[in-house]
Amino acid sequence: WDCGKDKVIEIASKAKKIGKDDPRKVVHSMKVGSALTLVSLLYYFTPLYDGFGEAGMWAILTVVVVFEFTVGGTLSKSLNRGFATLVAAALGVGAEYLAGLSGEKGEPILRAIFVFVIATAATFIRFFPNVKSRYDYGVLIFILTFSLVAVSGFRVTLIIQLAHQRLATILIGGAACMLISIFVCPVWAGQDLHNLVAGNIANLAAFLDGFGGEFFSFPGNEGTEFGSHDQEDKSFLIAYKSVLNSKATEESLANFAWWEPGHGRFRFRQPWKQYLKIGVLARECAGQIDALSRCIKNSKPKVASEIHKKIQKPCTTMSIELGKGLKELSCAIKDMKFPSSAVETFIQNSKAASDDLKNILEVCLQSKHDLQEIMQLLMVASALTDIFKSVEK
Amino acid sequence: WDCGKDKVIEIASKAKKIGKDDPRKVVHSMKVGSALTLVSLLYYFTPLYDGFGEAGMWAILTVVVVFEFTVGGTLSKSLNRGFATLVAAALGVGAEYLAGLSGEKGEPILRAIFVFVIATAATFIRFFPNVKSRYDYGVLIFILTFSLVAVSGFRVTLIIQLAHQRLATILIGGAACMLISIFVCPVWAGQDLHNLVAGNIANLAAFLDGFGGEFFSFPGNEGTEFGSHDQEDKSFLIAYKSVLNSKATEESLANFAWWEPGHGRFRFRQPWKQYLKIGVLARECAGQIDALSRCIKNSKPKVASEIHKKIQKPCTTMSIELGKGLKELSCAIKDMKFPSSAVETFIQNSKAASDDLKNILEVCLQSKHDLQEIMQLLMVASALTDIFKSVEK
Repeated sequence: WDCGKDKVIEIASKAKKIGKDDPRKVVHSMKVGSALTLVSLLYYFTPLYDGFGEAGMWAILTVVVVFEFTVGGTLSKSLNRGFATLVAAALGVGAEYLAGLSGEKGEPILRAIFVFVIATAATFIRFFPNVKSRYDYGVLIFILTFSLVAVSGFRVTLIIQLAHQRLATILIGGAACMLISIFVCPVWAGQDLHNLVAGNIANLAAFLDGFGGEFFSFPGNEGTEFGSHDQEDKSFLIAYKSVLNSKATEESLANFAWWEPGHGRFRFRQPWKQYLKIGVLARECAGQIDALSRCIKNSKPKVASEIHKKIQKPCTTMSIELGKGLKELSCAIKDMKFPSSAVETFIQNSKAASDDLKNILEVCLQSKHDLQEIMQLLMVASALTDIFKSVEK
Repeated sequence: WDCGKDKVIEIASKAKKIGKDDPRKVVHSMKVGSALTLVSLLYYFTPLYDGFGEAGMWAILTVVVVFEFTVGGTLSKSLNRGFATLVAAALGVGAEYLAGLSGEKGEPILRAIFVFVIATAATFIRFFPNVKSRYDYGVLIFILTFSLVAVSGFRVTLIIQLAHQRLATILIGGAACMLISIFVCPVWAGQDLHNLVAGNIANLAAFLDGFGGEFFSFPGNEGTEFGSHDQEDKSFLIAYKSVLNSKATEESLANFAWWEPGHGRFRFRQPWKQYLKIGVLARECAGQIDALSRCIKNSKPKVASEIHKKIQKPCTTMSIELGKGLKELSCAIKDMKFPSSAVETFIQNSKAASDDLKNILEVCLQSKHDLQEIMQLLMVASALTDIFKSVEK
């Protein structure tokens, strides 16, 4: 009993945490509940039930299956479902006609062949990459509807009325989902994508901003200007890791965002692919930062050597300036403005620092590693700037 | 017209390519077609139709929705669907009983409240990470079935018979899918995962094997022993990139594999998580290789300097030995054997080469970058060996 109680408490606290981290999830759950309740009115009100009958079931089915967390997801599934049902129903009626022409014995065989051929072909089409990314669900529904129409035509005579009822209820269910997801506390995939990309770049900026301090701080001299981070503040050192694994999330959000109408500061058919490009660059950058962070772990000397002290200043400046530049970029993305000329300045500063570093190194030829890494970061940062300019036009 | 014809030809050649790359996809499509045709017999044979009636529809629906490419995917969806339907039907009957107790006016209100509460709670549960990864589909079906039972109980009096018919047809559909996917040319997610992980490590090995030759070859001296790769052979230089992005695929395969019964050389409940751990290590390794490959692009000098020649030998040896070690590992994973002691030898050789390199460098203090990178690779490789030993026991 105690064990069960602990379990319940554990689950409850987990649920609370999820709700707190993203209250939109709670709202979403309630939206699904309301949409279902709304659609079940088709059953409760006698005049509605007389019109649709058992087909009201399809409205419930549609709501449950189609309602997704983001507006884009819901739209994509509803529209896919709607169009696929229409096309499949039309094809099904055609098959119906052909099956009617054949004799009584040939009819079931012909129907079986139709179903086999169409299902095989459509399933194969689902493997096309561009179909998979955008119309996968539609093709699935196409197979389903076509099979249902073609097969049940064998038993049901009023096939047209049946199709009409089902189509109407599916449209009602889909419309309910779309309206609720768009107008009641909408969760826009585009906005999420935007925030994710900006946040990723901010994470990179935070790392670079703190890197100098981390790499050149030693247990002995905590009080130096760069080494004063608290132990709790070390989160910026691992925040960049999430950037490395953000590819799948970004792609699905961009897919969903493609379906969304204009909202907030976004137009319909915003060039979402540009976000993916920024995402790729950010990941490359994160890969280089990963290499830098391995330097902290592996090659940080125990005590400050002479050379270490010499390169501390330019290295730290470089990394901080780059961090500032990236932060500026991230803010610019967030506000959808041109990155201000400050970015250029930061990058210039950083370049100057890197030249300093080069000069120092030419004297003592060491720690070339950091130089190369940071030089590459610098290049990526300028690439980011360039791309970003081209994005926001 | 011509444009349309070109389009058709283009699509056909694309389809041919997909079919050639992975013939299992063609087979899968035909399996789906056969399963559907089989299940539609429920409609064609009069005795069967008399038993199930319209509910045969649910068998078709189940087949279309549940049949996935891998056995694990199909099993996971079928079992989820089966259990969720059972639980939801039981709960629905309970709700039915409670709704029957309330008066005529209270009944629809009570039903609506049930649906709202259950749908909201279940949708929220879908956000729990461990539910999402394994039972997401089950919860979806739970909501669907519960709503259908609770709502349609208002109109249909023979609710028990209805539930019985539906359950039976869903079981028939699910069973057909499971049997066909397991016994007709099965595609095992576990096997795929196994091959993917082994292939990823082989890709890393190929890169390391070729890296020395690539980095130290110059347009001038093509004929040297390491620089004799053809231009077409450069694919190994980018093959490792797919490793960086394999996280999502690996995780979904591991999820599916969890559902699969023993097959081939795999037991039921193989420790699939160990594959994910190897995957994480392989990705880390790929990240470091990425850094190395940037060296080829950015810091490869135009001509061989004195120092360059000096470090060529140990660097190349190191990288080749490491590559051999990884290849050995990859073969060992593929054959599910212990990695042979040869791996140790390769790593020892590589370590020796790295010591050589250190000695040379201590004289001339340059190109420290490569040393550090390769040292890290070396560490990762040993880590891989260790983990692998623990995996295969």
